[in-house]
Amino acid sequence: MSGVRVDWRASLALVGSVLTYLAVPLCFPIAVALYYGDGGLVAFLVTIAVTLLLGFGLGRLDDDPDIGAREGFLMVSATWLAVALVGAIPYLIEAHGIPGVVAATHPESTLGDPANALFESMSGFTTTGATVLGSISFDAHTRAMMMWRQETQWLGGMGIVVLAVAILPKLSVGGAQLMEAEAPGPGLEKFTPKIAETARALWGLYVGLTALEIALLYGLHLLGPALGTPLAPKMTFYNAVAHGLTTMPTGGFSPEARSIEAFSAVVQWVIVPFMIAAGVNFALFWHLVTGDPNHVREDAEFRGYVGLLAVATALVAGFLYTDPGLAGIAGALEPSLRHAAFQVASFVTTTGYATVDFNAWGTPAKYVLLALLFVGGSAGSTGGGIKIVRWLVVLKSVRREFFTTVHPDAVRPVRLAGQVIDESAVRGIQAFTLCYLVLFAVASVLVVANGAAVDGGMSVFEAVSATASTLGNVGPGFGAFGPMNSYLPFPDSTKVLMVGLMWVGRLEVFPVLVLLTRSYWSS
Amino acid sequence: MSGVRVDWRASLALVGSVLTYLAVPLCFPIAVALYYGDGGLVAFLVTIAVTLLLGFGLGRLDDDPDIGAREGFLMVSATWLAVALVGAIPYLIEAHGIPGVVAATHPESTLGDPANALFESMSGFTTTGATVLGSISFDAHTRAMMMWRQETQWLGGMGIVVLAVAILPKLSVGGAQLMEAEAPGPGLEKFTPKIAETARALWGLYVGLTALEIALLYGLHLLGPALGTPLAPKMTFYNAVAHGLTTMPTGGFSPEARSIEAFSAVVQWVIVPFMIAAGVNFALFWHLVTGDPNHVREDAEFRGYVGLLAVATALVAGFLYTDPGLAGIAGALEPSLRHAAFQVASFVTTTGYATVDFNAWGTPAKYVLLALLFVGGSAGSTGGGIKIVRWLVVLKSVRREFFTTVHPDAVRPVRLAGQVIDESAVRGIQAFTLCYLVLFAVASVLVVANGAAVDGGMSVFEAVSATASTLGNVGPGFGAFGPMNSYLPFPDSTKVLMVGLMWVGRLEVFPVLVLLTRSYWSS
Ligand SMILES: [K+]
Ligand SMILES: [K+]
Repeated sequence: MSGVRVDWRASLALVGSVLTYLAVPLCFPIAVALYYGDGGLVAFLVTIAVTLLLGFGLGRLDDDPDIGAREGFLMVSATWLAVALVGAIPYLIEAHGIPGVVAATHPESTLGDPANALFESMSGFTTTGATVLGSISFDAHTRAMMMWRQETQWLGGMGIVVLAVAILPKLSVGGAQLMEAEAPGPGLEKFTPKIAETARALWGLYVGLTALEIALLYGLHLLGPALGTPLAPKMTFYNAVAHGLTTMPTGGFSPEARSIEAFSAVVQWVIVPFMIAAGVNFALFWHLVTGDPNHVREDAEFRGYVGLLAVATALVAGFLYTDPGLAGIAGALEPSLRHAAFQVASFVTTTGYATVDFNAWGTPAKYVLLALLFVGGSAGSTGGGIKIVRWLVVLKSVRREFFTTVHPDAVRPVRLAGQVIDESAVRGIQAFTLCYLVLFAVASVLVVANGAAVDGGMSVFEAVSATASTLGNVGPGFGAFGPMNSYLPFPDSTKVLMVGLMWVGRLEVFPVLVLLTRSYWSS
Repeated sequence: MSGVRVDWRASLALVGSVLTYLAVPLCFPIAVALYYGDGGLVAFLVTIAVTLLLGFGLGRLDDDPDIGAREGFLMVSATWLAVALVGAIPYLIEAHGIPGVVAATHPESTLGDPANALFESMSGFTTTGATVLGSISFDAHTRAMMMWRQETQWLGGMGIVVLAVAILPKLSVGGAQLMEAEAPGPGLEKFTPKIAETARALWGLYVGLTALEIALLYGLHLLGPALGTPLAPKMTFYNAVAHGLTTMPTGGFSPEARSIEAFSAVVQWVIVPFMIAAGVNFALFWHLVTGDPNHVREDAEFRGYVGLLAVATALVAGFLYTDPGLAGIAGALEPSLRHAAFQVASFVTTTGYATVDFNAWGTPAKYVLLALLFVGGSAGSTGGGIKIVRWLVVLKSVRREFFTTVHPDAVRPVRLAGQVIDESAVRGIQAFTLCYLVLFAVASVLVVANGAAVDGGMSVFEAVSATASTLGNVGPGFGAFGPMNSYLPFPDSTKVLMVGLMWVGRLEVFPVLVLLTRSYWSS
C-alpha cells in the first residue's frame, strides 16, 4: 500500500486489545442467563470466543503499537465500529441459533435481520437508545439479551468518558481543545499514565453514580411495602440495574416498552437528577470533589446548561399546564412540572427516556423538544449532540462579528467566562457546528427520499426528528418514531444510514469523516 | 444624546431623499387608476403628499449629509423600514378612506388592519411575496392598489441591486466583501460616481430584462388569436406588466389568486428562465455583455447555482413522475419536468411563484423545497436567503478543517475557484450563516409558541416553513401557508415578528442587528 502514511496496523492492534477487554463485560449477561435460566448462555459464550479471537488476531498486527494523533482517528472510529459489530452477535444468535450448536431462543425476534441487529448494537454502544425491537418484553427476548442491550450503553458511556477527557483534546477535534482547560489535574501532556489516572478517577465517579442510582431505585422498591405504600412497585432489582446502566451514559434504553412511564412519579423524579448529572462535564465533578465549588459555579457551559434546563422546563411546563387536550396533566402542577422537567432533561442530556408519549402534546411543547435535539449536553459528559459549549462559542463569535462589522479595524478575541478562546478553537467550533448541520440536512434528505418505503408514508416532522435524534445520539423521534415506538418501519437502507449517523455523531463527527478524505491516508 | 457616535442626522437625511424619490414611482398606480377608473386615485395622491412631506422633513436634519460605513447601516435599515411604512398607506386608505376627503373603496379589505398593511408592504419592498390579502381579486381591490403591490417588489429589487453591488461590499457584511471581486469595472474604491455608474448599468439591465419579459408575455397573449390557438389567454397587458414587475426582483406577488397556475404551460416555461436570470449575480451579466463569457463559466457560485438547479429539478421531477397520487403529473414527462423546474427555480431564486399547490406532493418532493428555503440565490442577485456563495465557502472551510484536523500544523487558505478567500471573509461568512440559522431557530420557536392563536392549530412543518420563507424572502410556506393560501391566519404578533424577519433577512441580517448592539451607538 504505497503512499499510505497512517500506521493502520498499530491502530487496529489497539482496536484488538479493546475487543479482548470486551470479553470481561460479556460475562455479565452470562451471569444473568445462569440466574434467570431463561436462555441466552451459549450466545454470549460464543460471542466471547469471537471477540477474543478477533481481538488477539488484530493484536498480532503490531506487537508494540505506538500511535500518534493521526492513528488516533482510525483507532477511535474503528473501535466503535468493531465493538458494535461484535455486540450484534448475541442478537443474531438469539434469533437464528447456531446450526448444530444451539437452537434459536426467540426466532421471532426482529433482530434476526442483520441490519436491525447492527442498528440495535450501534444504538447501544453510541448511547443513542433508538430501538428496532419489535416487542420489548421478556416473552420475546431472554433476560440476558435485554441486559446486554442495557450494558452496551453503559460500556459506550465509559468509552465516551475516556474519549472526551483524554483522547479528543489531543486530536483537536472541533474545538475539543477547550476541554483541556477543564480536564482535572495539572495538564495532560500526552498519552501518559496521567491520562489513565484521570480516566480511572472519572470511571470511579461513573461507577459510583451508577451504583447510587441502582441503590436508590431498588431501595424505593423495597421501602414501599415496608411503609405500606407502593413507592416503586415495578422497580425490581433487574429493572433498577437496567436503568442504572442506561442513565449515566445518557443511553435511554429501557426493558420496559413504555419507558419510564411504567414507573411511579417518585421513580421519575429520582431519575431526573441522575440524567442531569450525566449531562454535566465530568471534570467539573472533580473540582467539586476536590473542594473547588467556585470553579463549577463560574463554568460558562455549566451555567448555560442549568439555564437552558430551567428555561426549557418552565416553557414546556407552561404549555402542558395550559393545554386542555392533556387529561391528567393540564391544570395539574406536579404532573406538568414532572413531565416537563423529565422530558427536557432527557432531551438536553440526550438520554431519550420518556415518562409520557409526548406525541400527544401540543405543537409548541413538541417543538421545544425538537429544537433541543440540536443542542446537546455538555462537553466532557456522556451526552451527544453539538454540545452547549460549542453553541456558546458560536453565539459569542456572532457577537464578535457584530462588533467587528461596526469596527472593521478592531481586533477582538472571543471570550468565555473571561477566558480568551484561541482563534483556531473558534474556527474549529464554527466548522464543527456547520458541518454537523450540513450533515443533518443531507442525511434528512436521504431519510425522506427513502421514506416512500415506510408503510403509510412519513411526515417531514417524523423524518427530521428521527434523523436529528440518531445523529445527536438522543434516541426517540416524533410521530411513528416516538418514545413508545421503534425505528422498525424504516427500510434497511435508512437503518444502515442511521447506524452511520449514530457512529459519526457519537465520535464528534471529525474522527470518522476525516477517514473519508484522501489527505488523511496519503499526505 | 451624549455618547452617541453615529451621525444619525445624516443617515436619516439620506432616508429622507429616498422618500422624496418614492413620489415618482407612486405616479404609476395613479396612471393605472386613471386608465381603469375603478378607484384608488386619491389614496396615491395622499401617499405622494405624505412621502414628500416626510422626505423633505427628514432632509432638513442635515443639508449636506456625508456618511461613513457606520451610518450606512442605519441608513440602509431605516430606508427599508420607512419605505415599507409609507408604502402601507394606500392599503389603509383603500380599507378606511379618509374621513371628509374620500370614502373607502374596499372597506372589506384585510389590509385595513395596520399589522396586515405593514406586512403586505414590507413583503413587497423586501421582495418576499408572502401575502395577507383575504381575496386576491379585482372585486376586492382596485387595480391601482394591486399594481402598487407588484410595483413595491420591483422597487425593492432595484434597491437590492444597489445594496448588493455598491453598498454592502463597503460595509463588509457577512463576507460581502467577496462581492467586490465580482463587481464590474476596475474596483470600487468608495462612494464615488463610479458606483452610480455601475448601479445605472445594472439598473439598465434590470429594466431591460423586465421589459423583455413583459413583451414576451404579452406577445404570447397577442400571438395566440393570430395563430388561432390560445397561447396565453389570461396574460392580459395588466397581467404581463404585473408579472414582469415581480419576476426580476424575485418577488413572487401575483394578481392571480392561484399564482402562475392560472396561466398556460407556455407562459410557465417562459417565466422559468427569467426567474433563473434574476437569481444570478448581476455583475456576471456585465461580464457576459462586455464579452468575457469565460468569467461567467468559471464563476464558482454560478456553477454551484446551475448545478443546484439541475440536481434539485431532476430529483423533484423524479419524485413527481413516480408519485401515483398526482393525477395529470405522474407518468407524464412534460408536466413533471415543468412543475419541478418551475418550483425549484422559484425556491432557489427565492421568487415564490407556484404553478401548482405543492402541498399535494409527496413528502420527499416537498422536503427538497423545504431544504431549498435555507439555500438562497446568488450574491449580487435580487434573491434572498443565505446565498449559494456563502454555502460554498462554508463547505470549503469545513473541508479545510478536515485537513487541519489531520495536519494540525498546516496553514491552508480557503479557496474558491482557485482564489484565496480572505480569513476575515471566511470568518464573516461562518458567523453570518450561523447567525442566520440561530435567528431562524429562535424565530421559529416564537412562531410556534404563538401558534395556539391560529385556528385549528399549526403543525411544526407549517410553522418552520413560514418562518424560513419570510426570513429568506421566499414567500410561500407549506400547509395552511402554502402558495395558494395566505399568512392571514397568523396572529398580529406573529405578523409583526415576520415583518422583522423579512426586513432583517432582506438586508443580510447584520445591518439591522448591529443597530441593536450598544457598541454600534456609543463606542
Ligand atoms: K440517548
Ligand atoms: K420572493
